This record gives sequence, C-alpha cells and structure tokens, in this order.
Amino acid sequence: MGVERLTIKDIARLCGVSVSTVSRVLNDRPDVSPAVREQVLEAVRESNYVPNNSARYLVKANSDAIGLVVRGVSNPFYSDVIKAINREIDAAGYTLMMQQIGSSEDEISRGAIMEREKKLRGLIFLGGRWDYSAEELGTITVPFVCCSYTNSFGSLDRGSFSSVSIEDESAARSAVNELIRLGHRRIACLLAETDDRSISELRYRGYLAALREAGIEPDMSLVERTGSFGMDEAYAATKRLVASGAEFTAMFIIADAMAIAAIKALADCGRDVPRDCSVIAIDGLSMSEYVRPTLTTLCQPMSQIGEESVRILLDVIEGRSGCRHVTVETALRPGASVAAL
Amino acid sequence: MGVERLTIKDIARLCGVSVSTVSRVLNDRPDVSPAVREQVLEAVRESNYVPNNSARYLVKANSDAIGLVVRGVSNPFYSDVIKAINREIDAAGYTLMMQQIGSSEDEISRGAIMEREKKLRGLIFLGGRWDYSAEELGTITVPFVCCSYTNSFGSLDRGSFSSVSIEDESAARSAVNELIRLGHRRIACLLAETDDRSISELRYRGYLAALREAGIEPDMSLVERTGSFGMDEAYAATKRLVASGAEFTAMFIIADAMAIAAIKALADCGRDVPRDCSVIAIDGLSMSEYVRPTLTTLCQPMSQIGEESVRILLDVIEGRSGCRHVTVETALRPGASVAAL
Repeated sequence: MGVERLTIKDIARLCGVSVSTVSRVLNDRPDVSPAVREQVLEAVRESNYVPNNSARYLVKANSDAIGLVVRGVSNPFYSDVIKAINREIDAAGYTLMMQQIGSSEDEISRGAIMEREKKLRGLIFLGGRWDYSAEELGTITVPFVCCSYTNSFGSLDRGSFSSVSIEDESAARSAVNELIRLGHRRIACLLAETDDRSISELRYRGYLAALREAGIEPDMSLVERTGSFGMDEAYAATKRLVASGAEFTAMFIIADAMAIAAIKALADCGRDVPRDCSVIAIDGLSMSEYVRPTLTTLCQPMSQIGEESVRILLDVIEGRSGCRHVTVETALRPGASVAAL
Repeated sequence: MGVERLTIKDIARLCGVSVSTVSRVLNDRPDVSPAVREQVLEAVRESNYVPNNSARYLVKANSDAIGLVVRGVSNPFYSDVIKAINREIDAAGYTLMMQQIGSSEDEISRGAIMEREKKLRGLIFLGGRWDYSAEELGTITVPFVCCSYTNSFGSLDRGSFSSVSIEDESAARSAVNELIRLGHRRIACLLAETDDRSISELRYRGYLAALREAGIEPDMSLVERTGSFGMDEAYAATKRLVASGAEFTAMFIIADAMAIAAIKALADCGRDVPRDCSVIAIDGLSMSEYVRPTLTTLCQPMSQIGEESVRILLDVIEGRSGCRHVTVETALRPGASVAAL
C-alpha cells in the first residue's frame, strides 16, 4: 500500500546479524537468543518487511484460502469459536489455514506473512490488539475480520475492516449490577490490566460505571491485576488480595477461567463461595457449569461469533457487502457462586 | 493403491441422488437430510471414492503442506498438543493445514479428501479409531502418524504407519493401583464403553487387570458407561451410579473432564470427595489443578506427544527413517481428590 519495504538483507544489516538469523527468527525457530529475536522482530515491525520466500511463493494464483490467526492458543473460550469458523468456511467451499501464536506475539505481522505466503483471500484474527493504527494495518491487503474483539482504542477507519464482538463495557456493567442488586457494595475486581487498551480495560470501565451509577466510591485497594489471563496468575492475585486485608463481599472477574482459579484461592484462604464472597465472571465456558460452586457468568455466544465472522468476511470477499461491525449479546447464566448479602 | 475408484457420478447413481447432492455431502453443507447424508457417506466409504474436484486441484505440485485432522474438537486435552504440532511444523518450514471434525465423523475419509485436494506431504491424525484395516487405509497414500492413539485393535502392518501414544492399559492399571494401595477395594469405573475398541476399552482392561492382581473380584454393578467423553454425560452417568445403590469408596474415571463432572455429581448427591469417595483420572489438564478438590490424575506429556508426532512424520517424509511407534510416559500428579480408606 505504497509503503517502501526492506529486503531480508536490509533487516539483517540493520540488526547486525546474518540473513540466516533473520530467517530463523521469521520461521520461529528456537535457536535464536531472546534479545536478538526481539531486535529482529522490532526491525521487521518498523520496516513493514514482508518475507518473499521464493520457494514458498509457488501457490496457485486464485487461492481459496482463508487465514485464521489465533492469538493465545490455550484460551478455552476459543474452541467453540474455531469449530464454528471451521464449519462455515468448509461449507462455503474455502480452505481454512490456521496459525496459532502466543498471547504476546504480533498477530498483524503473522497475518501479513501468511497473506503473502499463502495468497490468502481474507483473514480472521481470533483475539488480538484493540489499538491498531492505519499504518500497521498497511501490511494487510486482503479483507479481514477482528473476531471476538474490535478496535475501540485504535485509529482505524471503521470502513476499512470488520469486527464481531460483545459490548465488553456494558457486559461488565451488567455483571457488577447483578452483585449490587443483591446488596453487595464492597466489590473487588480481578483484571489483567486497567490500562491495557483492550478487553481488560473495557471491562474495568464497566465495573467503574456500575459502581458510579450505584453511588459507590471505587476503592483502588479492591482492584487486583494479573499479567495475563492464566489460571496460575489469577490464583496468585486473589491470594494477594486476601492477604492485603482489604474487605470485600464479592468479586467481579473478567474471565471464567480466572474466576475458577480465584474461587480455588478463596477456598484455600478459608473463604467459602458464595457464603463469604460472591463471584461473577464473563465468558460462559462449559467447564464453568461443573465446577463447585457452578459459576455465575455472562455467556458469550461463541458459535454465533464464529459464524458471523465468516459470513461478513465472505460477503466482503465475494463483493456482496462492505465491511461491517457486529455486536452480539451476552446472557446471564445463573450459577451458585453468587448470593444475596 | 490399486483399488478401483468410482466417480462422483457413480456414487450419485448408486445412491439414487443427484451429483450436486453428493457434492453437498462431501462439502459438509447443511442442506442435505441426515438419511441421504449417511447413505452417501456409506457409499463413499465402501467405494474408496476420492473427490477429484478440478477447481480445487490447482495447487502447486511440490506442496509443503502437512494435514492435521483433529477429531473431537472440544477435547481440552488437544490444545497443548495442537500448539506443539503447530510450532514444530512452522519451525521446519512446512505449512500446517488443519481440519476439525466431530467425534463421530470418519477421520480417514476426511484425511483422504484433504490429501488429494491440498496435495499433502503427510498427515497427522489427532484422535481417531483404533481399529483400522489395511483396506480402509488404502485411500491414504502419504506418510501419516496417529497422534495420541495407536492401532491396538486393527490389522495395519506396523511398518506402514507411525504412532505416538501413552500405554493406556498400563496407565489405567497404575491409577487403579494407587487407589488399591490406599485401601480401596470397592472401586467404581466410569468409561465411555467397555467394548469400543479404543481408549475406553484399553483403560477398562487396565482397571480389570489391577483388580485381578489385587485379588479383587470385578463387580459389574460398579462399571458405568457414557456415550461420549462429554461432561454432561459423565455427570448423568455418575448420578445413575449413585442412584443404583451400588456401594463404592472410590472411582477410576478415564478422562479429567469427565472426572470433574463426576465430582460435581457426587457433591450434588451429598457425597464429599475424597471423604466419601476418592476420584482418580487420566489426562492432566491444567483446569484439574484449580477445581476443588484438585484432581489426582496421571498426566500425559501433551507437548511431547505433539513434538514427537511431527519429528517422526518429517523423518519419514524426508527419508531419514521408516515408520516408528513411540510410547510416552504418564506421571502421577497428586491432587486432593484421593484419600486413604
């Protein structure tokens, strides 16, 4: 898109490493030091470099391939979304090519590489950043859909991409309202970050909005953060919260898996859920119906999110419509983790 | 492999349906009745028909594509295996093409279709049947690996395919031995089937072997079955077992997710785990460390299973070795779901 691109040799020269080192980094091989790896990826990002590996270019010109980049592979929330995407793409006669990347990796550069190598017709990003700029997205030249998230913190023109997501802020507000309705006022919040410009920040805003509407002053000693959505970190963060001595009768937790780990941590600290502390989350995993107590949670319509993403992408690819942004509804699934105060 | 193959027209004539109906079935589109769908798939299976869709044949001759057919998509056990397979195939410079199918679908016919359409170099089946015959496998002409299972009940020549799996029978024997060591003798067993010629039957054999070695007469009223590995069915089966009035102090359950649902069912029947009933399983999901009580389970080395599968497949494809069969070890992860009697 008019951006001048460097060659693999330029990248190597810029970083002061060999061409084969750059190649190893781009192919995600393990035999590169973390520092060099980071330096090369940084240079790749800055330069809009896109590999043009001639041996890999031998794919047919009129591909039927749709790329799916899944960020954060062990997210149990994704399995039903992937299943729906897979089924819909298959049914439409396209071929799904899937790439899974870690939650700290860059989905855009991976998508751009995949687009060139596989001659994709379109891309679906399942999980990704919420703050894209138009410049970064210049490396993606096919239609794409942000699946399960959107670009709330970015500067992309809404007409240049599509998205399917829940309204995170209002879902969080509903969850916290449910606790307030039951008489809770000392409500703790377990987040990834308050300012990560993504799902965690949006759900935090919903938490604050619900408190504000109920005339409750937010207490920062009740807001605990983890570095990721991992169960191990959620467990440790909940233990820190209890150890801090902060008083609370309920917790709003931004994801089901984190909430399951938090309930375990509360139990290990001698606090019974819901007798001593109510817990509510957002996601709606099937596992949440079998833990004890069953988790009260706002369910995301996972199959619908996958189906809508494919429908929109194929509409754009096949010229039936322009880019669209769809928000889908969550539904409260009452469990046994919430009680009236 | 010398088998005479029918055309799509022959299949249509055999079934008394139109060519486009056969095509819709093969492309898994929804607008075909279940009865017609089953009839067409049956004819396809019997005839060794492999679609030769000319529009789809336009892939390059020297593909770098490896196919991965995942059977039973919502199996949480698979996510770390897929992650490892993805990483290793990427690192080796090949392209992963993944297909997910339901647990009742036929991975071999899907793999065969994928092989032809995508010009695969090799195939990995993640989950599948344990009783292949050489005839059925004639439709697969590239090297393949059975990942997480092997062909214990089939008639394939061991030199004609590869596999990576745990020793299911001996893992089950170890699990049940652990219960016996702690004084349990009335040990119930929750299975998918006792004669499904697969993982469930092998683990059932291990259960019987452990009882036999300890001089305990198997009691068929303590063996409960489900139709699948689903949590909903495991929950219902455990409730049936309790309602039957059969007396038991421990349960051996063939999979972690089923065990989590069973613990919930026991609790809902007023039975505390482990005070009233010990529970042990096989798999080692991370979720199992956060449920209450934490699950005592034999962990499968998921990353290793994925890595070994790719290593073997690429060795065969690149001519470094012939087919291999690798068994990997499980390790007991003690939780709080088991107590001495």
